[in-house]
Amino acid sequence: MIDAQRSPLLTDLYQLTMLEAYFQSRIEDTAVFEFFVRRLPEQRNFLVAAGLEQTLTFLQGLHFDQEELDWLAASGKFKPGFIDRLACLRFTGEVDAMAEGTVFFADEPILRVIAPMPEAQLVESRLVNLLHLQTLIASKAARCVLTAPDKQLVDFGMRRAHGAEAAMAAARASYLAGFAATATVLAEQRFGIPTVGTMAHSFVQAHDGEEEAFLNFARCHPDNAVLLIDTYDTLRGARRVVELAPRLAAEGIALRGVRIDSGDLGALSREVRKILDTGGCAALKIFLSGNLDEFRLDELVRAQTPADGFGIGTHLDVSEDAPSLDCVYKLQEYAGMPRRKRSSGKATWPGRKQVFRHLDGAGRLSRDVLGLLDEESPGQTLLHPVMRGGERLRAAPALAQSREYCAQQLATLPEPLRGLHPARTPYPVGVSDALAALASRVDAAFA
Amino acid sequence: MIDAQRSPLLTDLYQLTMLEAYFQSRIEDTAVFEFFVRRLPEQRNFLVAAGLEQTLTFLQGLHFDQEELDWLAASGKFKPGFIDRLACLRFTGEVDAMAEGTVFFADEPILRVIAPMPEAQLVESRLVNLLHLQTLIASKAARCVLTAPDKQLVDFGMRRAHGAEAAMAAARASYLAGFAATATVLAEQRFGIPTVGTMAHSFVQAHDGEEEAFLNFARCHPDNAVLLIDTYDTLRGARRVVELAPRLAAEGIALRGVRIDSGDLGALSREVRKILDTGGCAALKIFLSGNLDEFRLDELVRAQTPADGFGIGTHLDVSEDAPSLDCVYKLQEYAGMPRRKRSSGKATWPGRKQVFRHLDGAGRLSRDVLGLLDEESPGQTLLHPVMRGGERLRAAPALAQSREYCAQQLATLPEPLRGLHPARTPYPVGVSDALAALASRVDAAFA
Repeated sequence: MIDAQRSPLLTDLYQLTMLEAYFQSRIEDTAVFEFFVRRLPEQRNFLVAAGLEQTLTFLQGLHFDQEELDWLAASGKFKPGFIDRLACLRFTGEVDAMAEGTVFFADEPILRVIAPMPEAQLVESRLVNLLHLQTLIASKAARCVLTAPDKQLVDFGMRRAHGAEAAMAAARASYLAGFAATATVLAEQRFGIPTVGTMAHSFVQAHDGEEEAFLNFARCHPDNAVLLIDTYDTLRGARRVVELAPRLAAEGIALRGVRIDSGDLGALSREVRKILDTGGCAALKIFLSGNLDEFRLDELVRAQTPADGFGIGTHLDVSEDAPSLDCVYKLQEYAGMPRRKRSSGKATWPGRKQVFRHLDGAGRLSRDVLGLLDEESPGQTLLHPVMRGGERLRAAPALAQSREYCAQQLATLPEPLRGLHPARTPYPVGVSDALAALASRVDAAFA
Repeated sequence: MIDAQRSPLLTDLYQLTMLEAYFQSRIEDTAVFEFFVRRLPEQRNFLVAAGLEQTLTFLQGLHFDQEELDWLAASGKFKPGFIDRLACLRFTGEVDAMAEGTVFFADEPILRVIAPMPEAQLVESRLVNLLHLQTLIASKAARCVLTAPDKQLVDFGMRRAHGAEAAMAAARASYLAGFAATATVLAEQRFGIPTVGTMAHSFVQAHDGEEEAFLNFARCHPDNAVLLIDTYDTLRGARRVVELAPRLAAEGIALRGVRIDSGDLGALSREVRKILDTGGCAALKIFLSGNLDEFRLDELVRAQTPADGFGIGTHLDVSEDAPSLDCVYKLQEYAGMPRRKRSSGKATWPGRKQVFRHLDGAGRLSRDVLGLLDEESPGQTLLHPVMRGGERLRAAPALAQSREYCAQQLATLPEPLRGLHPARTPYPVGVSDALAALASRVDAAFA
């Protein structure tokens, strides 16, 4: 079976029909496309760029396998000469991008592709697919991290992520944004993300009683057992842990903590904390899960809930309150001429652009300016070269390094942008005089 | 790189830590798990079962590769004996399920696994992941199909689906639910789903003018060109099509239609229809796209918008208004003893269950009864054997056949459930006396 994650057939049909027309009409000059988000979701004051590494891997490996070429030929949709062209197609272009973990805003390109038109066009659908997903999750995860900076946050969402790639992307993007760990085993194997886990209700239910279940689990995992105490009655479960702890200690087994997955998590954790503390189990940690998101997290943290960690599942992995971003990959220049889409409500800024960022005296974000790549403008530049001639300019940074960078980026957020609710005034992103002038010239030329 | 879609490492860590404890404590007797949705999303009056075939493929192929075993061993998380057990682990169990395309409701199991506890437990995370995704999308797609039954609906959402597998699942699940086609090329290669496509704004922009772009595209695709007319000015674009059509006809080229992707789609399509009709282009079809979902579709259909087809993208592929289902895979019986989770707000019905469906005289759904598998009860039974001894009982039905079955299922929906807004009274799903009695007995036994 063709691997969907690698295949150039994971694309919209029109990419191929357009490609055939580009070749036939010799529209093979240099094209400049930029990826950006048109509008932030209502509940997002900023976004976090992610997915660049998977995108570069896709671009670097772009090619049609024989099986794919044969299928295209047999489909009857294309002329034989086109299939021959596809057989030698590779991505030979340039990519500039914001580093993963960079905080960004609407209209700011986070990635630019410069390549012969057919190459730059063909990669659109999958490039958007890859950047969208991880940026979506990293942005949601960052809100959780800002809400509970001192807690251990863990991605628990694999089972309801939208498929295998989404589950892996969620583990990666949430870790990048500051999560401590994931429950997804393959994410440790592939990305080196720490994994943690406890037990499920089914484990408790498979035993004749909770006590037997707790003992069996702790004896099997003597160093780090976290017991799920809410299968039947949470407080009774906590008292059972207190009873068993000395017996287990006598066997050399130290429990790590308990997990509560249902009920009034705030009230229950206070009571459980009391039971554990008065029962000589002050060292045991309390982990909470069950339908959590950044808003619920905020309530729990504000109420000083005595929890050490939180498992955030479905709401994180599907970005429940904003499951998509209005992101696009738009042609900004072709054959040296800036281009601008003027569709109603969807106009874009033409040309090759740079984002210039200004910080205040305290190192917090003050304003960004969207300008032309080649203009002289003060401020930090956010887009940097990452690929030339279809090859990465350097090895992918370690994920831990990108995570550290993301933490620095989040530290630059001014107070109004850190909140969970829409900031009264959105972050100012201006347009440079040079860019505004270019847009006017393009409009005049195409009027 | 390990293939995430196949790997048993795409799971929650606790599945493996529980497994180790199951082996160590010899909890290897027969377990019965059922997959069901606890509550329907507010905007869903019914759901459509989907994803069974991918789930069976996963179960049938379940095994740990040497690379996976080596990594687990090196992780230091597990004892060597456990790795040996994993090396020989296969799925040897039974599966009963609702056919793909079946309409179902809260609390109704759509799939049951009966297998030795370790096998039945290990498969949980990925099984939920697979069934959740396609059921989610099929249920969203069915709403679109019911809203616009006479229109050509096309999945346009690949680029913002949550990754590669989600894009493929969205194409498959929406076709199953009655969509006519997808834009995703690989979905035609893998599933035989018809693909359609038009052109992108970038294609028009890459040319010096719209006319040149239209001519080049039509000449390359003389049988089925659909021209995107909203890049600069939709009505001017439509008039240009009218001007070019006779020239192209003289070359033997028949345009298929136009697409509008922005602006007031209802008003624009009426004006465009007039321009085309009065310009001798009455045969040209109008396709609409741009931020569509079933609600927008409903408005357009009610307004008798003269459109022939609709591309539904992001809203479909991420199920925007309800991006997750509250679905679970719960232990219902272990070693012959029914089990019941009683966590606050999350209690489940114990035992092996069947759904008995009652239709009214007109063949419309009247009520369902959740009962025990072995009880005598009137009504159609919805769960059927699909796997025994880890092997499929029959080849997967053709997708077209499941699609036909789904259409029949949707035809059984009574009027109140067909609407887009929550039905005043939800569909009645009763519980049989035998099941209620069993639940009481289980509660008493574990009290």
